[in-house]
Amino acid sequence: MIKSITSTSNPLVKKVVQLTEKAKFRKEYGLFVVEGIREITMALKGGFEIRTLLYNPDIIGFDKIMRMGDFEVKNLEIIEINDVVYDKIAYREGTEGVIGLFSSKETDIKTVSLASKNPLILVAEAPEKPGNIGALLRTADAAGVDLFIIANPNTDLYNPNIIRASLGSVFTSKVIASTTDDVIAWLRKNNIEIHCALLSKKSVPYFETDFKGPCAIVLGTESEGLSEDWVKNADKNIIIPMHGTVDSMNVSVSGAILVFEALRQRSQNF
Amino acid sequence: MIKSITSTSNPLVKKVVQLTEKAKFRKEYGLFVVEGIREITMALKGGFEIRTLLYNPDIIGFDKIMRMGDFEVKNLEIIEINDVVYDKIAYREGTEGVIGLFSSKETDIKTVSLASKNPLILVAEAPEKPGNIGALLRTADAAGVDLFIIANPNTDLYNPNIIRASLGSVFTSKVIASTTDDVIAWLRKNNIEIHCALLSKKSVPYFETDFKGPCAIVLGTESEGLSEDWVKNADKNIIIPMHGTVDSMNVSVSGAILVFEALRQRSQNF
Repeated sequence: MIKSITSTSNPLVKKVVQLTEKAKFRKEYGLFVVEGIREITMALKGGFEIRTLLYNPDIIGFDKIMRMGDFEVKNLEIIEINDVVYDKIAYREGTEGVIGLFSSKETDIKTVSLASKNPLILVAEAPEKPGNIGALLRTADAAGVDLFIIANPNTDLYNPNIIRASLGSVFTSKVIASTTDDVIAWLRKNNIEIHCALLSKKSVPYFETDFKGPCAIVLGTESEGLSEDWVKNADKNIIIPMHGTVDSMNVSVSGAILVFEALRQRSQNF
Repeated sequence: MIKSITSTSNPLVKKVVQLTEKAKFRKEYGLFVVEGIREITMALKGGFEIRTLLYNPDIIGFDKIMRMGDFEVKNLEIIEINDVVYDKIAYREGTEGVIGLFSSKETDIKTVSLASKNPLILVAEAPEKPGNIGALLRTADAAGVDLFIIANPNTDLYNPNIIRASLGSVFTSKVIASTTDDVIAWLRKNNIEIHCALLSKKSVPYFETDFKGPCAIVLGTESEGLSEDWVKNADKNIIIPMHGTVDSMNVSVSGAILVFEALRQRSQNF
């Protein structure tokens, strides 16, 4: 049965707004909000379970909703909403009339095992902006890295700006957030070489290092670089030689240059 | 003599707002607005002439302003403004109390000659977002390309979002905007090989092509790719092999991968 909500004072409306705005509520409820056809399609494709689907029939037809993916309809609450309610809970401009509440997945890096015998891993420590995380996710996805790790994250992965900036690839990528300590311990345990991007005289140009074996490429923030924990655990320090007047590149751009150099080297090898 | 403006109804206040908001007015007046210490410093460094400097003494001291660069003080109009006026004309949040009006430079690509005998050029056709143009400018700057060309631009280079996203490198980079037709004619005349990034079966992986000679790397938009004019004038078609579920990367990320591969090849050569 399809329910209907017509008032913005309905408790579910408040809940959706809370889940959109605050990581605290996403953690508390174990739920997060996904808006838009492409993003919901990606979340379903990524194996996330949808709990509640809200749609505005004045914007989107039910047939189009059903074509987004395989719904477990028996557990799914479907709610029709009107323009007023939709405007209240919609997060984006130029929107598509459909919003889903999905269950979060919690994964502990200690339990992660990799399928590849020769993994390529991208690590970003404490990236500052959701937009940067989204762009890194798109790069990780395009490069097909075995795992993208956010170390010491400033936000959860279900932040609506991350979902949006990643074009939903946050749901289909192999991505995990964990503490720097746990990430380093896991890399060590799995014999993965640590290549730290470091603005230092002891760093070698990235194209002179060897990315062909199991390795992790580790990026710091644009403003602060990497924490001491990474620097002292680095097996290699690498640098992208710069020629300009602005002495940093966007972290997602640096990440792409390094990861695609690793892919280039690996394509020559096999 | 330092003048003072205390009312938002002063005609100069209206003019600054117009210049910030509309390319039409920037073109008409031959002026553009730069906000912030770093950005004004970069504009002065890039040889742009400052006409008017507005500052809020409650936010920034005059000593700090004078340390931004070499001012031709005799031609410079300096205006003290109060909080009300500053709030009206300031474009950014977290702001620094200083705004400059600079003269535009108009350059015709037909008159451009390159210092390098072996130029590396980056071309982006009709990039959609000022943020993308800013990121491409930072990449062009970091890579030290000989010229960054925007073909068939959707906006002028003095758009405040471009200035901001480029961290001011729009002023110090070799950058020009022109029509696709004129850009192609200029590249041909200068015997510069055209490498078009193209999602096509006839494209070769970018690391299998040779960027060591005089060449231009040409990027289209994320949504539409390159126009037919570029495709039919391509000397080489190149592609970044993708492995993911989202079939495009951000244009600034693609550009960085390609330009830095060219630099890598060139560093091996010389």
